[in-house]
Amino acid sequence: MKIINLDHISSKPLLPEVKAAMIKAINNDYHNPSSQHKSGEVAAETLDQARGSVAELINAALPKEVVFNSGGTESVNHAIKGVAMANAEKGKHIVTSNIEHNAVIRSLRRLKSMGYKVTSVSVDEKGRVNPQEVADAITDETILVSIMHSNNETGTIQPIEEIGAITRQKKVIFHTDAVDSVGVVPIDVQKMGVDLLSFAANNFYGPTGVGGLYIRRGTRIFPLIDGGVQEGNKRAGTENLLGIIGTGVAADITRRNLDKWYRHYKALTTKLLNDLPEYIDDYIINTHPEHSLPNMVSMSVQYIEGESVMLMLDDDNIAVSTRSACATGSLRASHVLISIGLSHADAQGTLVLSFGKDNTVEDVTAFLVALKNVVTTLRNISPLYQKVAQG
Amino acid sequence: MKIINLDHISSKPLLPEVKAAMIKAINNDYHNPSSQHKSGEVAAETLDQARGSVAELINAALPKEVVFNSGGTESVNHAIKGVAMANAEKGKHIVTSNIEHNAVIRSLRRLKSMGYKVTSVSVDEKGRVNPQEVADAITDETILVSIMHSNNETGTIQPIEEIGAITRQKKVIFHTDAVDSVGVVPIDVQKMGVDLLSFAANNFYGPTGVGGLYIRRGTRIFPLIDGGVQEGNKRAGTENLLGIIGTGVAADITRRNLDKWYRHYKALTTKLLNDLPEYIDDYIINTHPEHSLPNMVSMSVQYIEGESVMLMLDDDNIAVSTRSACATGSLRASHVLISIGLSHADAQGTLVLSFGKDNTVEDVTAFLVALKNVVTTLRNISPLYQKVAQG
Repeated sequence: MKIINLDHISSKPLLPEVKAAMIKAINNDYHNPSSQHKSGEVAAETLDQARGSVAELINAALPKEVVFNSGGTESVNHAIKGVAMANAEKGKHIVTSNIEHNAVIRSLRRLKSMGYKVTSVSVDEKGRVNPQEVADAITDETILVSIMHSNNETGTIQPIEEIGAITRQKKVIFHTDAVDSVGVVPIDVQKMGVDLLSFAANNFYGPTGVGGLYIRRGTRIFPLIDGGVQEGNKRAGTENLLGIIGTGVAADITRRNLDKWYRHYKALTTKLLNDLPEYIDDYIINTHPEHSLPNMVSMSVQYIEGESVMLMLDDDNIAVSTRSACATGSLRASHVLISIGLSHADAQGTLVLSFGKDNTVEDVTAFLVALKNVVTTLRNISPLYQKVAQG
Repeated sequence: MKIINLDHISSKPLLPEVKAAMIKAINNDYHNPSSQHKSGEVAAETLDQARGSVAELINAALPKEVVFNSGGTESVNHAIKGVAMANAEKGKHIVTSNIEHNAVIRSLRRLKSMGYKVTSVSVDEKGRVNPQEVADAITDETILVSIMHSNNETGTIQPIEEIGAITRQKKVIFHTDAVDSVGVVPIDVQKMGVDLLSFAANNFYGPTGVGGLYIRRGTRIFPLIDGGVQEGNKRAGTENLLGIIGTGVAADITRRNLDKWYRHYKALTTKLLNDLPEYIDDYIINTHPEHSLPNMVSMSVQYIEGESVMLMLDDDNIAVSTRSACATGSLRASHVLISIGLSHADAQGTLVLSFGKDNTVEDVTAFLVALKNVVTTLRNISPLYQKVAQG
């Protein structure tokens, strides 16, 4: 059964080279990188090599600024809670946006219950933060600004460099959740002026459950996970060496192919957006026309339920998504879509498409053909649509 | 180069069946278990299967009481900080022992800086906690007792069932760090009366960087990692599915072989302890003669440095340890050994041996022969030993 995967934001397949490296590592029987004897040293060198590869992908000044952990969500928790705890004496105020991932929202909610204050800046109708609003929100009590690099539901990219210039000038720690960006668009932590950056290996075709936090040297932050001396005393616990080896290889290959993949992604989303009017009408594109991930399109198809579209496309072996996989199970309309001004009804009709490097233009057409059928079927049974159609 | 690995507490090799399952999983291209379409469902079923296998290994009443995460250290942090945060209104007092792993010690240190109080009960000269002392330490403010199941440096097993009876009667949440026990000795969370139990997959020949926390249904605890709805809303973040698949297979095989491996381990440690006097003298056995892991022996060889022994044995391709791998890099004498009454000098001469299922009686003899040579060499250049030997 061939499935056309247009839900790469939930999960990207492993690169063949990553598979090969991980299988080799499985057969290699690595020892604990922290153990004292020479088997441990071999493992420690392997770990450092992967760290160097990721540092190069995001242009970190030093490999040790990359701290491996269990993925994007842990990275975000570490960044937000770690800075909050370490800087509480300076202040307890944090600035964020109202379209962040649940990892950010719920980490901040936890801190609010502990007496921290959070200012959430709004976004415009295409989901972009105004850097001036961030500047205005910063007070003498502000210890952290956390603004995502790209949104996981719309693909819209934030003006991170501009915000970074502000936080540097105001001497406030700046974290960006770049989970959906690292591996898809060029990332340069030095140019961006961020102090902390969260990433996940799966977004660049590495394994799930592995990722890390870039911590600029000198940033005041506590560990989230206390214990042993692993990861430069910043993240305790015996390392997921297999996953980290896969991450290193994925980072190397992604760095070398980033431009090529970018152009391929862009060709697919451009075709989708160009061809879409030939297949359906009455839809809204939620993705920013200019500042957006090349591989993502969020569209709200009016008068129907995105959930129904997703399920019917699933029957046609086409995988799409209606929201962040991390929010699956929630029945509420996406806070991201409401924040950019969509009505609840339109938000319910949203589909999130995310391309991978192996998708083809034929996949785009197959999706459009199937989408037209599904939308026609659903609208034929939609009382709301009948009413609208009849004028 | 064949290495005789007598340092399984740092790292155990993957079982062949675990390797095969993980390689198959790598080639299977699993989707995100939280994604909405059918590729996600397949992954979710695979995840549940592994959860069932681990639940059976520790005799959890319900599979969903097993929460997967990145390993023992995260589990310990989750248990301690999660209970502390969730029960702060009831009280801020925690009872522990003075021989815990760094993950416990440093998690508690973090809480102390936030206003929590910690009572640390001492252990006897074989490293055992007296349950009565735990009972006496519990006050109306006590919200958590955290006592490890077995010690990672001596192998001594604590009277967990007796402590569990006390915490149940006093209605205090009980966590045990069983990282070095699960997979080596029979574990029954219901019989033990624990509410929380930390485990790591590598201790039962699964991958590193994977483990979990048993959370008895109804236990009041916050997540350590906030975000998505994964793991029953108890641990956010896209799962390390490959690692969890390996963990499930490792749990199944371990459950079926636990008795056999136990007897094998016991035969090796018994031979080691029986034969040791024929090879060296002036040593102290730190492991409890009765209540101890079958696969571990801690011995302090007097008048020399354990570190030197470890390095010289490493040259002979025999891997041993002097302390917990998580504490590598520290030059201080082990708090565990000082707690059981060793002098600093004797503590410095400590070797920790931990057997795996593939070790043989020949490995024991090879170690003893090498140890005799190394000890003789080192004592010949030890002024202290010369003085003792002459006097």
